[in-house]
Formats: sequence, structure tokens, C-alpha cells
Amino acid sequence: MTAFDHFSCPIPINEYPQVLLAHGGGGKLMNMLIHQMFRASFPHVADHDGAVMPMTGKIAMTTDSYVVRPLFFAGGDIGSLAVHGTVNDLAMCGAIPKYLSVAMILEEGLPMETLWAVVQSIAKTAHDCGVSIITGDTKVVDRGKGDGIFINTTGIGIIPHDLTIAPTSVQMDDVVILSGDIGRHGVAIMAQREGIEFETTITSDSCPLHIPVMALVEAGVRVRCLRDLTRGGLTSGVCEIAKSGNIHIHLNESAIPVADEVRGACEILGLDPLYIANEGRFIAFVHRDDVSLALDVLHRHEATAGACVIGRVTDGRAGMATITSPIGAERILEMFSGEQLPRIC
Amino acid sequence: MTAFDHFSCPIPINEYPQVLLAHGGGGKLMNMLIHQMFRASFPHVADHDGAVMPMTGKIAMTTDSYVVRPLFFAGGDIGSLAVHGTVNDLAMCGAIPKYLSVAMILEEGLPMETLWAVVQSIAKTAHDCGVSIITGDTKVVDRGKGDGIFINTTGIGIIPHDLTIAPTSVQMDDVVILSGDIGRHGVAIMAQREGIEFETTITSDSCPLHIPVMALVEAGVRVRCLRDLTRGGLTSGVCEIAKSGNIHIHLNESAIPVADEVRGACEILGLDPLYIANEGRFIAFVHRDDVSLALDVLHRHEATAGACVIGRVTDGRAGMATITSPIGAERILEMFSGEQLPRIC
Repeated sequence: MTAFDHFSCPIPINEYPQVLLAHGGGGKLMNMLIHQMFRASFPHVADHDGAVMPMTGKIAMTTDSYVVRPLFFAGGDIGSLAVHGTVNDLAMCGAIPKYLSVAMILEEGLPMETLWAVVQSIAKTAHDCGVSIITGDTKVVDRGKGDGIFINTTGIGIIPHDLTIAPTSVQMDDVVILSGDIGRHGVAIMAQREGIEFETTITSDSCPLHIPVMALVEAGVRVRCLRDLTRGGLTSGVCEIAKSGNIHIHLNESAIPVADEVRGACEILGLDPLYIANEGRFIAFVHRDDVSLALDVLHRHEATAGACVIGRVTDGRAGMATITSPIGAERILEMFSGEQLPRIC
Repeated sequence: MTAFDHFSCPIPINEYPQVLLAHGGGGKLMNMLIHQMFRASFPHVADHDGAVMPMTGKIAMTTDSYVVRPLFFAGGDIGSLAVHGTVNDLAMCGAIPKYLSVAMILEEGLPMETLWAVVQSIAKTAHDCGVSIITGDTKVVDRGKGDGIFINTTGIGIIPHDLTIAPTSVQMDDVVILSGDIGRHGVAIMAQREGIEFETTITSDSCPLHIPVMALVEAGVRVRCLRDLTRGGLTSGVCEIAKSGNIHIHLNESAIPVADEVRGACEILGLDPLYIANEGRFIAFVHRDDVSLALDVLHRHEATAGACVIGRVTDGRAGMATITSPIGAERILEMFSGEQLPRIC
């Protein structure tokens, strides 16, 4: 039996309908939670303070905490997001994701069945992504001092190639490829949070990206830099790389795909798709001679079937990015200074 | 200049006296926080979604979130605790701590100077422990949905020896060494939280343990298992190892050192030192012929100067632990089932 077959919650719900402070206290109840729920779901977790494994070569390490509200949304939940997000951060380093730690901060009073649903989602998503959860931690904070569940995942991946994938590797005339249409994750969350219904349900784009990314590398595409477009959206990703790489990036707004329903929802909600968080979209900076090859490879994978060219590195002012609007006006692309969508991931 | 020289908060306090939701939103303010505060304090953090480093051999990985209240206490703060705790979990795997990730969940309204003090403490403690902080994450949750600061640290260490340090390695007649007196951390936190003053201020035992632990290994002590005595205290550590290793452990209560002021405070607070969390104490199971060597080594290090023998593995009922009281009565040692001290770490 795999960890995520839907057997029922292993903690007796009638006895412990909610998480108690004692479930994080180091005594019998914590022990029960760890052994009956977590170890049953995460079979690779070490029976000790930490996990031990052999490693050889270049490795990548990345960490993210997840505080998304609501915990369950169209196209995912905090558990699947916590796995995809860290898997994708490893992919953006050009690494094959291998191991994850999972640390949860639970609020006293959280329904035990909610915890169980999230744990099952983490287990299933990790299995689907081919990563092993090898160590974990659980803390419980008093009622009103948390918000249901916060999850930290930290990941380790292996880098099986000699590319240096980083903003400083980007070169003049490199081409910017976007892996698909933008804005779905943020709009899905926001619509759900605000209780807005659209004709079509907009689902989050949350998905793992390591397989198409590694396919690019294996095909020999000269990948210079990768960035997933989470908080701050496409704009923050592009601005940060322009700054870190000390290069000028120019985008063509007409080339950036946004689904009609997402565009419509953005108009209603007063949001700009260029700033909205995605959880399954990335940009790749590739050598200009490898663009067709890169698109061919990406189009073979469902998650990146909509990949297209949206811009390039030009000789404009280094450290900044510009964009040409659909009517031909050029403007500077700037990160937003306020808060567009809190707790989106 | 090192990262933790006490220069003043790099974020303009008059402009941003408190953490705002936008400091976690992926835009300009988050960028400012990351570049001006975190990168200035953590010089080894990668300028990308993750960090990349070479690794060869057996590695250990461990994760912990820290939700201690109050944030600052006698003998430490949430920042130093978050480094010591993860460094010590690596040490308990027999690993030399090398790399840490730091992920913070901040509550909107947190004073910026509090954040700065914690960040400085993390930087100084990491430096003192010889570990590099290589990647991080910051989330901000709305006011009333967090509690100031929660910190996750995940650590990677290198295992430079062939010992298998685990409960399953413990053998009959192995001796249990305790590294020093117990109960200081829990009592220090509790006294501060409850506003109780004692004649002497009791300070937390929070400290790094990897140097004395590695000294044991280097001296050739046959170390079978190690466990730091955090949540649930000495009792949980001993009970868990008895269960995981399917062995019987017998302790001698008279041999377990508790400082007079800690014992007095426990009586006032209604706590049992055997169950109180420590953040700088561990037990080591060692081959009986190596006990004198182990004590010699430990007595050379300040953190373990009080090391002593407190019990051994015997042929009693496997999977459980017993203890002989000072008046000679033997009882079964059991984990507590309630919550003795919430949010101690």
C-alpha cells in the first residue's frame, strides 16, 4: 500500500477531533502524531533527529515557508503547494529534486481531519514528484497565535551538469522564454478568498517543473538562468535578474500569454497579471541559437505546452528591464511597492 | 567587518518602524528587506532561489521550527536557539554542521528593531558555530495570525566517520552518559514567562554541542547513539530510544544532576526536571569499556564539563525504561501525556 491511499485518519477523531498544544509538547500525544500519522504517510522519514544519506557532486539547497490562505483552493492546497514550490526552486537551480524536510507549525484547535488531508496531499505530491520526505518537525502554537497550518519545506537536489544557472550567466542577445500563461495561481486564490465566482472556475497553475527543466538541459540547450514566477510575478522575476545580472531585459507585452478568464478576473479584482504570483510558470534565459530547440522540448511537456518567446537581453541600460505595450509604447518595468496579494503562497 | 558587529538597523526605522505585509509580498519592500538586512547579515546567502555547493560523502539533514515565547530570555533568544537547536540535531547524527537555511514567518506589526536584533543573533550564533547560512525565505502574515517571529532552520552536515549513530546501534551493557545538569532551559523560559524571580537568575543551557560530540568520535569512543534532551526532556529521549532500539534502559535518579536553584524553581512551578526541555544537554550511549575515555573527553569542554554516568542498557523488558529513585524504589519511566511547557523552543 502506498502512503497516500485514502485510508482514514489514523488518529482517533472522536478522541482527538482537534490538534492540542500537547501534540507539540514532546510527550505521548506528539509521539502518537509522529508515529501514527507522519511516519505512516512519509515512509522515508528517519527514526532519529535527522536523516543520513550519501551524496556526491554538486548539490542545491532551498527553503520556503508556506502560509497560503485558504488552505485548500482550486487546483491545490497548502500541502501540494509546499512540495511544488520547493521542488520548483530546486529546478530553477538546475537541480534534480531528491530530498525534502517538512516542518509544520499548527494552531491549537486545527481540525485533525484537516491536518490529515494536508499530510496526505504532501505525501501524494512528493511521491508524484519523485522526492523523498526524510525528516520533519511539528510545533503547536496556542489558539490565535497561528492560522491553521504553516508549512516549511526545505529541499536538496543534485546538479548533474556543468552549467552555471544564475543571473550572472546571462549574456547579451540571450532570449527570454516564458513557460506558459500567467496569473492563474494568484487569481484562483484571490477569487476563492473573496468569494467571487466566474463563469469558468480558474484553477491554480501549481505544478512541478523539474521534468521539463531537466529535459532542456539534457537536450543541450544552453540555459543561462531560470526563475519561477512566484511572489511579485513575472515583473519581480525579470527585474531581479536584470539587477543581479547587471543586464538589460526587454519584454514584448503582446507576446505574454494571459488566459481570457484570468484577464477578465484581473479587471474585476483590479490586478495586473504582470505582478501576479504563479506556482507553475518560469522564465528561461537561453542562448539565441537554442530557442527553437528549447521550445520544441518544452512543448512536449504538459506543464510547459504554452511556452513562448517574450523578450531578450539587449544593450539598454544595465540593471533594469523595459516592456513594449501592445500599442507600441515602451516603459520601464518596476516592482510594485505595496502589497498586491498577501499570503498567496 | 563581520556580519554581526553592532551597526544599526539597515532599514530606516522612522520610515518602517514595523514589519508590513508588503515586506513579504515579493515587491520593492521585500527586496529592500532581503538586500539591506538579510544579505548584509548573512554573507553566504545565494543570490538565487537556492544555494549550490559541492558535497561528497555521507550527509545529514535535519529541520526544526522555533516558536519560543518570549523571543528573548535569560541565556538566549529565538535566533540563537534556532541555530543551536539545528546544529545540535546534526551533532546528534554524528555530523559536523555545515550549512543552514533560515526561513522566517513574521507577524505584521513586528517592530523592525526586534527583527534586526533576532537577525543579528542568528548571524553571530551561526558564525560562532562555524556554519554558513546559505539560503532563506521570509513570509509575513497578517496581524493576529502569527506571534512576532517563527523561525525554521534546516541544516546539512557532513559525517566524517563510519559509526552508525542510531537507536538500533545500542547494545546490551552500553552505558548512558548525560552531558550536564538538566532543566535549565525550561525553567529559565517558564520563570520569565510567568514573571517569577528567583534569588539567582536561572539562564538557559542553550549552546552548541557539535564540538564535544565530534571530540568523542575523534577520540575513538564507540558512540552508539546520541540524543539531545529538548521537548519532553530526559524522559522522552530515553523512552524514545528504548522503544526505537527495542532495548531496556535503566537509570539511577540519584546520579542525574539538577542544580539547586532549578530544583527549587521546579518545586514552586510544579514541574519535574526529568520532563523539562534542555537546549544544550544530551545523552550518549557508549560502549562500557569506553566510559572513562568519554568522560575525560567531555570534561575538557565547557558545555559538557558536568558529564556523568546515569544509567545503562540492561536485560529488563525491551522497549521500555525504568528508573531507581533516590530512596531505592524502581518505577517505569513514562512520557507525559499532557502538555507541561508549551512553546519552549
